Amino acid sequence: MARPRKNEHIKEQLLNVGLETLLTNGYHGTGIKEVLDKLGVPKGSFYHYFRSKEVFAAEVIKFYADDLNHRLSAAVADKGELGLPALKHAFRLLVSEHKEGSGGCILGALASEIAETSDVCRLALQTEVDNWHCMMMVIIQQGQDTGEIRTDLDARMLAKMAWNCWEGSVLRMKIEGRPDPTEEVVEVMFDAMLKAH
Amino acid sequence: MARPRKNEHIKEQLLNVGLETLLTNGYHGTGIKEVLDKLGVPKGSFYHYFRSKEVFAAEVIKFYADDLNHRLSAAVADKGELGLPALKHAFRLLVSEHKEGSGGCILGALASEIAETSDVCRLALQTEVDNWHCMMMVIIQQGQDTGEIRTDLDARMLAKMAWNCWEGSVLRMKIEGRPDPTEEVVEVMFDAMLKAH
Repeated sequence: MARPRKNEHIKEQLLNVGLETLLTNGYHGTGIKEVLDKLGVPKGSFYHYFRSKEVFAAEVIKFYADDLNHRLSAAVADKGELGLPALKHAFRLLVSEHKEGSGGCILGALASEIAETSDVCRLALQTEVDNWHCMMMVIIQQGQDTGEIRTDLDARMLAKMAWNCWEGSVLRMKIEGRPDPTEEVVEVMFDAMLKAH
Repeated sequence: MARPRKNEHIKEQLLNVGLETLLTNGYHGTGIKEVLDKLGVPKGSFYHYFRSKEVFAAEVIKFYADDLNHRLSAAVADKGELGLPALKHAFRLLVSEHKEGSGGCILGALASEIAETSDVCRLALQTEVDNWHCMMMVIIQQGQDTGEIRTDLDARMLAKMAWNCWEGSVLRMKIEGRPDPTEEVVEVMFDAMLKAH
């Protein structure tokens, strides 16, 4: 891979620190100054890359989702799995990241906090959640073709239910202060609720 | 019902405005001053009732959950339903509130934003979510006894999955800017995933 140019490097660093800060302090609790101070980057540089805090948050959403989709696709492809085992493999990876203290899912966190008040962020979230659903739909469809996953509900609906259940379990993980609820969803949701009878 | 004393009235007003402000602006975006200004209440009064902003948020969590539990229990009792129809009736009430623009669920919103950084709020959330699970468990158990709800998973696990799925759909409602995802969960989660085959 070509080495990123200096400018790309700064932008990526801003997005990285932004992601971490947004996950810890939320949108309203994140100050641009705090992000800049952590990196020793001047204010002008920030506004060179991002028109506003809102646009910055929208780019963090895309940055996070791109990285996650890339890692999950690679992990699933690497194992050569399809259908239910691929789905469980991908979600188990997420569980293990939560166990290491990932800080949760920025899509769920920003959806909860600002989707209703920022159209810029809402649209970024919608794009990424739609992408997620599409990725999951492909895998679920494979499982339906092999007869392993139930077919009384279509792949899109099953993907939506799995996403809902997963995001709810991330909230419960935060409430219980331990990642067990996410682990539970991977076992129960996929095995007992998506599996064909 | 006895008329509340003046003090109780002020405390309830503070909790009501706090709930509204927290739902709109999140924990970090909510200032005590803003809440007080809306009611014309002096700062000293606030600290007479609540030791800190954190304690205030924890009391808002309890205030919201008590009211919700009371309304849902009353609605279910009023219809004289048990099991699956009772569950659907309760969640349809929530959907209709979302359609009228309720602003989402404060339990999910605060879980997402501050459960990891505030133990006071995390414990308040845990208590209320446990209460929710218990209420749902009782109704699910009734449906299991009549053979209407699946019994391969116990009532506690089904209650957890239903809560997860519901909270995820509230996030998706915010992302899509319309309440349809919550409506979908009531139809699909309960009918296709909880129902006995």
